[in-house]
Amino acid sequence: MKSIVILGSTGSIGTQTLDVIRNSKRDFNVCALTTNSNIDILYNQVLEFEPEVVVINDYEKYKEFKTIIASNNKKVNVMYGEEGLSYVATYEKADIILSSIVGIAGLKPTYMAIEKGKTVALANKETLVTAGRIISEKAKEKNAFIIPVDSEHSAIFQCIDGHRDFVSRLILTASGGPFRKKSIEELKNVSLEDALRHPNWNMGKKVTIDSATMMNKGLEVIEARWLFDISPDNIDVCIHPESIIHSMVEFVDGVVLAQLGIPDMRIPIKYSLTYPERTVTHYNRLDFTKIKSISFEEPDISRFPCLNLAYDALKDGDSSCIVLNGANEVAVNLFLEEKIAFTDIYDIVADTLEKHVRTNINCLEDVFCTDEWARNMALELHRKR
Amino acid sequence: MKSIVILGSTGSIGTQTLDVIRNSKRDFNVCALTTNSNIDILYNQVLEFEPEVVVINDYEKYKEFKTIIASNNKKVNVMYGEEGLSYVATYEKADIILSSIVGIAGLKPTYMAIEKGKTVALANKETLVTAGRIISEKAKEKNAFIIPVDSEHSAIFQCIDGHRDFVSRLILTASGGPFRKKSIEELKNVSLEDALRHPNWNMGKKVTIDSATMMNKGLEVIEARWLFDISPDNIDVCIHPESIIHSMVEFVDGVVLAQLGIPDMRIPIKYSLTYPERTVTHYNRLDFTKIKSISFEEPDISRFPCLNLAYDALKDGDSSCIVLNGANEVAVNLFLEEKIAFTDIYDIVADTLEKHVRTNINCLEDVFCTDEWARNMALELHRKR
Repeated sequence: MKSIVILGSTGSIGTQTLDVIRNSKRDFNVCALTTNSNIDILYNQVLEFEPEVVVINDYEKYKEFKTIIASNNKKVNVMYGEEGLSYVATYEKADIILSSIVGIAGLKPTYMAIEKGKTVALANKETLVTAGRIISEKAKEKNAFIIPVDSEHSAIFQCIDGHRDFVSRLILTASGGPFRKKSIEELKNVSLEDALRHPNWNMGKKVTIDSATMMNKGLEVIEARWLFDISPDNIDVCIHPESIIHSMVEFVDGVVLAQLGIPDMRIPIKYSLTYPERTVTHYNRLDFTKIKSISFEEPDISRFPCLNLAYDALKDGDSSCIVLNGANEVAVNLFLEEKIAFTDIYDIVADTLEKHVRTNINCLEDVFCTDEWARNMALELHRKR
Repeated sequence: MKSIVILGSTGSIGTQTLDVIRNSKRDFNVCALTTNSNIDILYNQVLEFEPEVVVINDYEKYKEFKTIIASNNKKVNVMYGEEGLSYVATYEKADIILSSIVGIAGLKPTYMAIEKGKTVALANKETLVTAGRIISEKAKEKNAFIIPVDSEHSAIFQCIDGHRDFVSRLILTASGGPFRKKSIEELKNVSLEDALRHPNWNMGKKVTIDSATMMNKGLEVIEARWLFDISPDNIDVCIHPESIIHSMVEFVDGVVLAQLGIPDMRIPIKYSLTYPERTVTHYNRLDFTKIKSISFEEPDISRFPCLNLAYDALKDGDSSCIVLNGANEVAVNLFLEEKIAFTDIYDIVADTLEKHVRTNINCLEDVFCTDEWARNMALELHRKR
């Protein structure tokens, strides 16, 4: 039985992780859960999974939750904010820290888990996008093991296992998102509703919009660079609209290994928890005679320029990746609030990067400082438009 | 540097193996070569690869070759027939015995290599089709390691490596051969020339015809059953006309791993020689943006009934697999000699199996005895038609 801490248990990955655990109760024990402010969902999770500790990041919600727990006579240690996160991210009993807090808020607790030498199942994108070098150096130093949760990186992780020395190229597949066939003109006028309608995957809002701009794939390229210690020149992106192949690895002898499956995040989540073993699941299986055919296309950079922004940022240096990420989060939020058009997302990120002067990133404080600069600059550029 | 013995060096796999070695001369040393009777090719191979021993199976050709070697002052030990094969199949210095003799003639030397605890790169189909149980038990006993050379089995071997305990299903891919789209009526009148024109692979004649009847895939199912110790119920065949995916493995968690590559036998041959490592090759690479799409179909058993014959033989017992193989070889030869129609191949094999009474197969002698019975019966049935 493995003991699991879920950082961010009320989000998309968090709730799906608990669904995996719900179906394998003999294999897993939940020792801690955390949420930003979603205490209603958290309360139900406490009833069902009986964690020893929960952490709430919002102070008002924390106080409210403490009252609820007390008045219902529940036995759970309720903690607040950064102190609580730090406590559960390094929880003594935990075998795996599943890091699924959304956004840069996930970076610090993930770093702390790694500093403690924990095994981290990593779903938080910002950790490696903004602090890839710091995190991978620390993981090496502390012998902490990072298992990717994201379907693409999980696919590569599975293909590469045992053949790491012979990799020549990673091929990240991308569905192409809901706007794969839209022209540049059409992209200017797409609605929020359309952008949130991903053809294959059911994900959080931020990731779904990133998927529509293909920034998501760019961020995954940056993550892959650090996860698998490979040059960006050897990371390709291939559009594969059916999302059956989750990614591929080409080896020096020309062989390609691919990982395939139905598009269900619970499969890579479960793998990250059971690795190096696999356990039986009862999700639908791939039926190739029903699939009939799958296809591949080259990404169209003229229509989806965010992908290239990410490659450029990666080549430019660590601080540019932080700026890319921070500015993108601001721009996506503006789009989600329907304050800007879809194609403005790229413009805001590109303009922010334009203003950025590369700096050295040596510690988390440097990351947060650059991130803050990028967010402020992105907002300022938006206001001036 | 690894020392290699090639059993059957003048055939399709043998010459391609030498081409692999030609391009990696620092990695491999050829210590012995064998041929049935093709001494012209063998002579050139001796000049280029300087083996210590060669074996010729045909007595007249053996004498002829000895004279040529003597008159040209070449330093190579020339041996004859079974004694020679036995000597090189168990060659002390050899790290790998590549077994690529065509037909049941390959069984005995392969068995001897395994009995000696050698690592065998196995290209000879008949070894596992006719003596799968004997061979796999002996390999276990003697700690001999079998690495498949065939592209499908190599693909499965690569996907399964390190995950063997978690396999739920093997999915052998099949191109469907040159007659994939032909109707039953059309199949009755196809020509030898058409049957020899495989859409994707350049192989020997026997294999090419087997590919057209899909008996080849049936034989591969039998081999897979023994190579990977898996029930026939968990081996599926999927038509994949582009031959990009060479085969797949489904695991208990629903994940599928696939091995892909250009259809070039030199890639799996090289892997069988370098395993567990991979070394750089300069063959063409897969370019997914050029591939555009790949497809899958269910095999049509009504048009390609040989596939089911193989499944039935496998379920029926070891002696039925021997009969299937022997009768098929006779029938394919009759077709190659243009004495029977394409669809007669199935009829002859099915009728021979019909006549067969299941017997226990405990040793190689039992295999040869049943094989001989099947060949005689197949010929007799042909004559009576």
